[in-house]
Amino acid sequence: MTHKVLLLPGDGIGPEIAAQAARLLKACQEAGLDIEVEEALVGGSAYDVHGDPLPAETLEKAKAASAILLGAVGGPKWDKIEDLSKRPEKGLLGLRKNLGLFGNLRPAMLYPQLASASSLKPELVAGLDIMIVRELTGGIYFGQPRGIEVRNGERVGFNTYIYSESEIERIGRVAFEMAQKRGKKLCSVDKANVLEVTILWREVMERLAPEYPDVELSHMYVDNAAMQLVRAPKQFDVVVTGNMFGDILSDAAAMLTGSIGMLPSASLNESGQGMYEPCHGSAPDIAGQNVANPLAMMLSVAMMLRYSLNENAMAERIEAAVGSVLDDGLRTADIASEGMQTIGTDAMGDAVLAAF
Amino acid sequence: MTHKVLLLPGDGIGPEIAAQAARLLKACQEAGLDIEVEEALVGGSAYDVHGDPLPAETLEKAKAASAILLGAVGGPKWDKIEDLSKRPEKGLLGLRKNLGLFGNLRPAMLYPQLASASSLKPELVAGLDIMIVRELTGGIYFGQPRGIEVRNGERVGFNTYIYSESEIERIGRVAFEMAQKRGKKLCSVDKANVLEVTILWREVMERLAPEYPDVELSHMYVDNAAMQLVRAPKQFDVVVTGNMFGDILSDAAAMLTGSIGMLPSASLNESGQGMYEPCHGSAPDIAGQNVANPLAMMLSVAMMLRYSLNENAMAERIEAAVGSVLDDGLRTADIASEGMQTIGTDAMGDAVLAAF
Ligand SMILES: CC(C)[C@H](C(=O)O)[C@@H](O)C(=O)O
Ligand SMILES: CC(C)[C@H](C(=O)O)[C@@H](O)C(=O)O
Repeated sequence: MTHKVLLLPGDGIGPEIAAQAARLLKACQEAGLDIEVEEALVGGSAYDVHGDPLPAETLEKAKAASAILLGAVGGPKWDKIEDLSKRPEKGLLGLRKNLGLFGNLRPAMLYPQLASASSLKPELVAGLDIMIVRELTGGIYFGQPRGIEVRNGERVGFNTYIYSESEIERIGRVAFEMAQKRGKKLCSVDKANVLEVTILWREVMERLAPEYPDVELSHMYVDNAAMQLVRAPKQFDVVVTGNMFGDILSDAAAMLTGSIGMLPSASLNESGQGMYEPCHGSAPDIAGQNVANPLAMMLSVAMMLRYSLNENAMAERIEAAVGSVLDDGLRTADIASEGMQTIGTDAMGDAVLAAF
Repeated sequence: MTHKVLLLPGDGIGPEIAAQAARLLKACQEAGLDIEVEEALVGGSAYDVHGDPLPAETLEKAKAASAILLGAVGGPKWDKIEDLSKRPEKGLLGLRKNLGLFGNLRPAMLYPQLASASSLKPELVAGLDIMIVRELTGGIYFGQPRGIEVRNGERVGFNTYIYSESEIERIGRVAFEMAQKRGKKLCSVDKANVLEVTILWREVMERLAPEYPDVELSHMYVDNAAMQLVRAPKQFDVVVTGNMFGDILSDAAAMLTGSIGMLPSASLNESGQGMYEPCHGSAPDIAGQNVANPLAMMLSVAMMLRYSLNENAMAERIEAAVGSVLDDGLRTADIASEGMQTIGTDAMGDAVLAAF
């Protein structure tokens, strides 16, 4: 069966890194992978053309695809759009919501070749390998009511942080299963000493725990989790948390590695359909200069092969190719270091393809 | 006029470090400071005696005081209390709310003597001096509606993230004024690409900016702020944000110094009345062992003298005493390092008093 892959370059550096992913997909096809690749617009670039960050055509193609590869969305060009529903980010949020991509996997791992890129002392991050499991279609990102309105003679802004038991259970199971496949430690992050919604969160995690007796479940308040990530990140194996806390903690964890330009992520729904994207953003300040690091995007292709297309061997070939390029001392500017050779986006794509 | 100071030891290591603060207050009195010191119960220790983490008597005393010194509240002993309104944390939250202590100042500064304690590379944190201004009586901590209830046949937990224009303006002015007294840079942290409440937040900050033409205002999304704190913390001078984001970011920032046991904080209301407490928590695991670091608590006394009692000279004497104790190589266990002398809570109190 031919898998449909939808490539959404998006904004900023998105198109540049997506171009390298497209080349890699072609190489995979030549190596026997049975896929069909389509492209579509999303985010600010879709807004510019269609006045909508998630045009109906893009959403239809996304629904029909086995997997989606997304570059990045957003940029200062669209920051002044008054109507929040037209901002580039709504393209991304709309895809997540419409496809039910509730399970966001954000690995934060340190490539041994890039150990010195971390801002933390080497001994604290050597061998770092954390998997953050973030709930992606609920919580305060999507809670109703929300808005800005006049109350008692002045404007108030408000959002709703809400989770149902079934939403919590669903992401909890993803996290417990992930922990079973990894180091068997799961840390659930909440703010149960203040927020009722996270009291329910904690309760559901506790209820699930006996079904996964091989996994050691612990709980941590979000403020403490932010501290512990800075202090001693290697204490974590799998972390599970809600949409907003996951946004913050996964970025902090990714940055611990010093090479966020290397980290892919996956967002999965109940039927295994997934969207794959780099952890980094659209980096508008360096867009169009052929300096962006395409590796997180190329590694997103590997993650897609593994999680949505069940093509482990091909995924490993890509990861090995990236490893050997790093071994060869090739670096883009974001991970440049003394004694290594700094190259551009295209050249990095060339190198990975040559090693593939 | 005699100032009333209320000392609230609280839970965990609270009583031990509060005892050192009490000795310091006595020394200040002997040095001519006109204060009257009272004590009261709060948190779990108040719950144990009165069934209430914030007994009416404690609240009355707090209202009558010019300043409050709080140790810390909370611990596993009280984690199983089903009724959230009886948990130790509600003692703290109730004080903040009832006294209107909306302006939370959380400095994150690195003591040169403790530079090696940071988990970050020395060059990234040398000279670090960030002031986080956190809104403390609003946002999702206090927003209504909140709770856990059955909807469509299953339980849902929900909280409300809400700010009015006047609440945002009030904390914004504290932050702009703080920036004027410091490095003249203010970074406002929000999630305006997703949350309406923070769109209003950003708008109000923008509206205030022209009144403080000497301050350079910037905006950052909270996920990026968490990354930037890890990557290059010295880019920040003053940071202003809401209650929840402030909770997370101020702990991360404090931990960057590697010596959270050194950091005091202030929570102020519109009339300058304030509550002062260490940034660290109640550390129940080391309570009662005479190993806790009392310095953050003693430096909270200094902060109180400066912000609520207008006694700058005496505040500086305390800070200088702490500095000289560090210069002498004395350390509690949390900041111990090779070649330094590790001492207990009491002995550290002795040393500061001797240097005062
Ligand atoms: C772009 C933004 C809406 C998004 C989010 O907050 O989820 C991004 O920060 C992310 O983490 O994928
Ligand atoms: C104890 C807890 C309620 C409190 C908070 O979340 O505000 C603490 O973490 C703090 O930062 O002072």
